[in-house]
Amino acid sequence: MPRFAYVNGRYMPHRDALVHIDDRGYQFADGVYEVVPLIEGRIVDEDAHIDRLEYSLSELRIPMPVSRAVLRGLTRELMRRNGVTDGIVYMQATRGVAPRDHRFPDRARPSLVMTTQRKVPLAKARIEAGVAVVTMPDLRWRRCDIKATSLLANILSKQAAVERDAFEGWLLDDDGDVTEGTSTNAWIVTADKKLVTRDLSNAILSGITRKRLIAVAAEKGYALEQRAFSVAEAQAAQEAFITSSTSLVLPVASIDGKPVGAGRAGPLALALRQAYLDFVLAAPRAL
Amino acid sequence: MPRFAYVNGRYMPHRDALVHIDDRGYQFADGVYEVVPLIEGRIVDEDAHIDRLEYSLSELRIPMPVSRAVLRGLTRELMRRNGVTDGIVYMQATRGVAPRDHRFPDRARPSLVMTTQRKVPLAKARIEAGVAVVTMPDLRWRRCDIKATSLLANILSKQAAVERDAFEGWLLDDDGDVTEGTSTNAWIVTADKKLVTRDLSNAILSGITRKRLIAVAAEKGYALEQRAFSVAEAQAAQEAFITSSTSLVLPVASIDGKPVGAGRAGPLALALRQAYLDFVLAAPRAL
Repeated sequence: MPRFAYVNGRYMPHRDALVHIDDRGYQFADGVYEVVPLIEGRIVDEDAHIDRLEYSLSELRIPMPVSRAVLRGLTRELMRRNGVTDGIVYMQATRGVAPRDHRFPDRARPSLVMTTQRKVPLAKARIEAGVAVVTMPDLRWRRCDIKATSLLANILSKQAAVERDAFEGWLLDDDGDVTEGTSTNAWIVTADKKLVTRDLSNAILSGITRKRLIAVAAEKGYALEQRAFSVAEAQAAQEAFITSSTSLVLPVASIDGKPVGAGRAGPLALALRQAYLDFVLAAPRAL
Repeated sequence: MPRFAYVNGRYMPHRDALVHIDDRGYQFADGVYEVVPLIEGRIVDEDAHIDRLEYSLSELRIPMPVSRAVLRGLTRELMRRNGVTDGIVYMQATRGVAPRDHRFPDRARPSLVMTTQRKVPLAKARIEAGVAVVTMPDLRWRRCDIKATSLLANILSKQAAVERDAFEGWLLDDDGDVTEGTSTNAWIVTADKKLVTRDLSNAILSGITRKRLIAVAAEKGYALEQRAFSVAEAQAAQEAFITSSTSLVLPVASIDGKPVGAGRAGPLALALRQAYLDFVLAAPRAL
């Protein structure tokens, strides 16, 4: 069975899925995207992802390429055609094709590309070991609240982290505080068991998993502070973890080589991961 | 005659020129570009553009997709096929096609796309009137020395300038100093006839026209300071102008609505534009 992609109104074999060289997504990174997790046939927090897609597009003044209802339909049809129950749906919308010019084109129809990717869930042993994080300056632009494809700083930072044998890079602002990871939000647990994650601003993406975990944690009675924290505070924390659509809730074992807590997954991070999964699996399957 | 584009080894009609949706240029802005001016059949400062392409690629650790000699050959063949003597050659190189993952792929062949665009030279009256510039915060990332396609901040700023009836936006750093324009370098002329343009750093692109004009100005005996300047200093300057591969040397008439000098093209800017064109036209024609 070939894998299908959806490109501007048509399903086609993924390998033949093409866009024009004058698509402004290609020449200017003039577009946005979403990564929607699929877990055991559930489409996780789909509405929140579509909300954020709408937000990102509206900040760039790009119209939604299709309605919310159509987007939901496309997601289900791609899952069905590709037989994907665990992985992601990737959707990318751009301002469309126009002769190259920095100014917005007078007329352009927004492009929409959607694909799926299978992902093997992380092994239990890996989650319990926790992952290594390293820190580096945040080189990104000043509108990280927009989920744009202008991701060059993110990929360079992720690659730098990988080459330092880490799973993720935590990005530091000019005050030495952690903004977020290259593709994840950053969290710590204080000595008195408070959860801490950076407050929303133009400096970070409003993560859907972050948002969901805030709700899940509140339900479980955990205290939460949304504020900046330094590398030193994170290294001295009881626990640390990251959240994202693909990592879900993933414990951090070390930061810049210094063990956090016991140097492996902390009990609170593991409990929150489980609580998050419980929430996900309580939803009905889409496939 | 159809217009041709070159895409990864093949010439094809521009309208059929496509790249894969998994090209990292599309998903991550993981690529770089050059805009090489063509003036009366001359390929302007071709070697300097190829040097900068090599620099940008090496900073991203992307290999050159073809040799310098091939790049020169492709430029000439596209000019010939498209019959373009005035305009630009656009070249974009990306890390290539790979399954979506922030980390660099183990194997990927860099993509190369080349096109031409005709441009009508600016009318003399427009140049003599000078253009309006408005200022705005510099939202871009911290590696503006790399000519990357991660241009979302640039296009949003350019569009904001256009909607404020300006030709260009000058971007301001946290000190209120001008870094550069959204697609041009910024210059002023002091009361004692010194040229001032921002010194090279990660905050600006090393413009090829900027570099050439520095050489041309030195030959003409003008004094030059490479340093930051504020909006207030620019508004109070004798003259101001911008440089780029498409604007060449273009006088600035006003900054944020305040006239600069006489509120039209200054004599020094016009003389430098002419000296730049003299340099260009002294070179042999490529077509």
